[in-house]
Amino acid sequence: MTERFSFTLKATDGRARTGVIDTPRGQIRTPAFMPVGTAATVKAMMPESVAATGADILLGNTYHLMLRPTAERIAALGGLHRFMNWSGPILTDSGGFQVMSLADLRKLTEEGVTFRSHIDGSKHMLSPERSMEIQRLLGSDIVMCFDECPALPADRDRIVQSMRLSMRWAERSKEAFGDRPGHALFGIQQGGLEQDLREESAEALKEIGFDGYAVGGLAVGEGQEAMFGCLDYAPEMLPTDKPRYLMGVGKPDDIVGAVKRGIDMMDCVLPSRSGRTGQAFTRRGVVNIKNARHADDPRPLDEACTCPACTGYSRAYLHHVFRAGEIISSMLLTWHNLHYYQELMASMRAAISEGRFDAWEAEFHALRAEGDG
Amino acid sequence: MTERFSFTLKATDGRARTGVIDTPRGQIRTPAFMPVGTAATVKAMMPESVAATGADILLGNTYHLMLRPTAERIAALGGLHRFMNWSGPILTDSGGFQVMSLADLRKLTEEGVTFRSHIDGSKHMLSPERSMEIQRLLGSDIVMCFDECPALPADRDRIVQSMRLSMRWAERSKEAFGDRPGHALFGIQQGGLEQDLREESAEALKEIGFDGYAVGGLAVGEGQEAMFGCLDYAPEMLPTDKPRYLMGVGKPDDIVGAVKRGIDMMDCVLPSRSGRTGQAFTRRGVVNIKNARHADDPRPLDEACTCPACTGYSRAYLHHVFRAGEIISSMLLTWHNLHYYQELMASMRAAISEGRFDAWEAEFHALRAEGDG
Ligand SMILES: [Zn+2]
Ligand SMILES: [Zn+2]
Repeated sequence: MTERFSFTLKATDGRARTGVIDTPRGQIRTPAFMPVGTAATVKAMMPESVAATGADILLGNTYHLMLRPTAERIAALGGLHRFMNWSGPILTDSGGFQVMSLADLRKLTEEGVTFRSHIDGSKHMLSPERSMEIQRLLGSDIVMCFDECPALPADRDRIVQSMRLSMRWAERSKEAFGDRPGHALFGIQQGGLEQDLREESAEALKEIGFDGYAVGGLAVGEGQEAMFGCLDYAPEMLPTDKPRYLMGVGKPDDIVGAVKRGIDMMDCVLPSRSGRTGQAFTRRGVVNIKNARHADDPRPLDEACTCPACTGYSRAYLHHVFRAGEIISSMLLTWHNLHYYQELMASMRAAISEGRFDAWEAEFHALRAEGDG
Repeated sequence: MTERFSFTLKATDGRARTGVIDTPRGQIRTPAFMPVGTAATVKAMMPESVAATGADILLGNTYHLMLRPTAERIAALGGLHRFMNWSGPILTDSGGFQVMSLADLRKLTEEGVTFRSHIDGSKHMLSPERSMEIQRLLGSDIVMCFDECPALPADRDRIVQSMRLSMRWAERSKEAFGDRPGHALFGIQQGGLEQDLREESAEALKEIGFDGYAVGGLAVGEGQEAMFGCLDYAPEMLPTDKPRYLMGVGKPDDIVGAVKRGIDMMDCVLPSRSGRTGQAFTRRGVVNIKNARHADDPRPLDEACTCPACTGYSRAYLHHVFRAGEIISSMLLTWHNLHYYQELMASMRAAISEGRFDAWEAEFHALRAEGDG
């Protein structure tokens, strides 16, 4: 434990990195996968179970929490950690991405965004200053700059304008964040798939100075090849001695490719959302538990997995409870998926430490190619 | 542990009793409340969490399991205990009650009941012999006789005919059950609210001879006063040295009244079902967590409760996740309710052992009268 936020790089292997982020609420081993706790819960999981999977940090969504139960209410109740019974670090997004994808009647100006809640139609505003205030009220450990990003593909002019607006907002975010020892503020690089705009954005952010840097504006429809293309240059534009966070990524192979390209932190709803729709991630690829071939199968989802779903239950049981619409189906598959993701991160951290990431990656892909047969 | 099924009465206080049922799969402390695991899961709970609440035994539903995933499939997978990852004792109902309340196109004859599944319309049959076979395939520790019972009110003639049919089926159930050391077969007393018919039914059952006896045909719409009226005489017609099981009961005050009248075992979906609809049982009565008065309340549901919902979360959080439709709402409230029920049973067992059941009961009612205010 430490009173300050700091990042220590422990080893690199190619461009892949492993290290530790120290925060007053605990250590975050990188590369780190952050489960998403949108509405102050990682869906279908008790927080102690999320911790048991190996997660060091959760992500909370500013947009959802500001609407319900509201940031002011959470602050009055002692902050988000206490509210949701999670004592480790929490990263909150700025609300910028979700207000653009979920809210109604959005109006974007230099000042910020006004919009109506998708839940009850009530009117709200987000700006760099308001986003910083909300994330402070929540008690977030890692605060994200308020930014704006277009869905891809978008024309270059739209990307330029959006990136420059986000850089002006990054400056206002830094100013509004102020000096908060033990808490971190991350800047967000934008620029779509344009290398020169990524460079311009990175320079603007470094000029302002942040505790960490996100690669934003990816995983928004561009596909894995385009995303990896951008990750071939974008992370290296950011400071080596600060954590690099790829927002909203992704599938297991996206994650492996991102780590390979120098990313330290990721988040995604995929393992939890897939758990609720009967999709399980395994070393041999995705298993669709609703498939009739599992109805009589006494084997676990993944024989090598030590999660409660795999040590306690057959595929036949998981198939049955999914088909019967039982809540335990979501509980067990979500647990398994989050466990799988954390095992993936742990094994990549070990491989990087031991300088065998390429061999590890080859085995990762080989086992998936064999399939679940 | 023991290789045989046996019941040991440890203490009585008035008509209230406390004791222990020994089975090869573990002890059942009586009076016992059995959570219901209809479709091979106690809804929204991991089985280890159900055990953590203090439950010694679960109830499984023959009707649901025979339709999906089928008894034959569960048998091939090693039985219901292994299938649902519960190593303690399991009691299964006979399917008789649920086929009458849930199935389509029922046809009742002396032989049994033919019906169509409410899930997929497929045709099935239940009889004393088939019910015994299914419960054997499931691996049930306590098997219930196949019976039939009318909803109340019903005219006396209907009750007489139904009770006498059930007694003939009880004899066929005993014959079909055979000799299965370590497994128990319970007879079910019928007779509605007619004392002489209850007596006739009890005599018929004792003549056949069972390992335990259920008071059936109650909690079917007659109201608490009528039920207690029947329980003032019905349990005492059954052997003192065998467990007495009141099926499908009930609310906390129903349970207390039943224990007071000599009942040893009960089951009910109420704590788990209520957990999913935002109703929490506490020492001070029912708390409806969706009520707006809880939105800013930092207090736990019940300050004296040691369950995870009460030790980790505020009412404000429980209100929030219920309103947001989050699965953790069902998980936490179900856990609390099952914990509350098991604490209720444990405190009654202690009160009976120490000969202070009347004082305990007075305090139980006094605290509820104060309300949650
Ligand atoms: Zn697993
Ligand atoms: Zn509780």
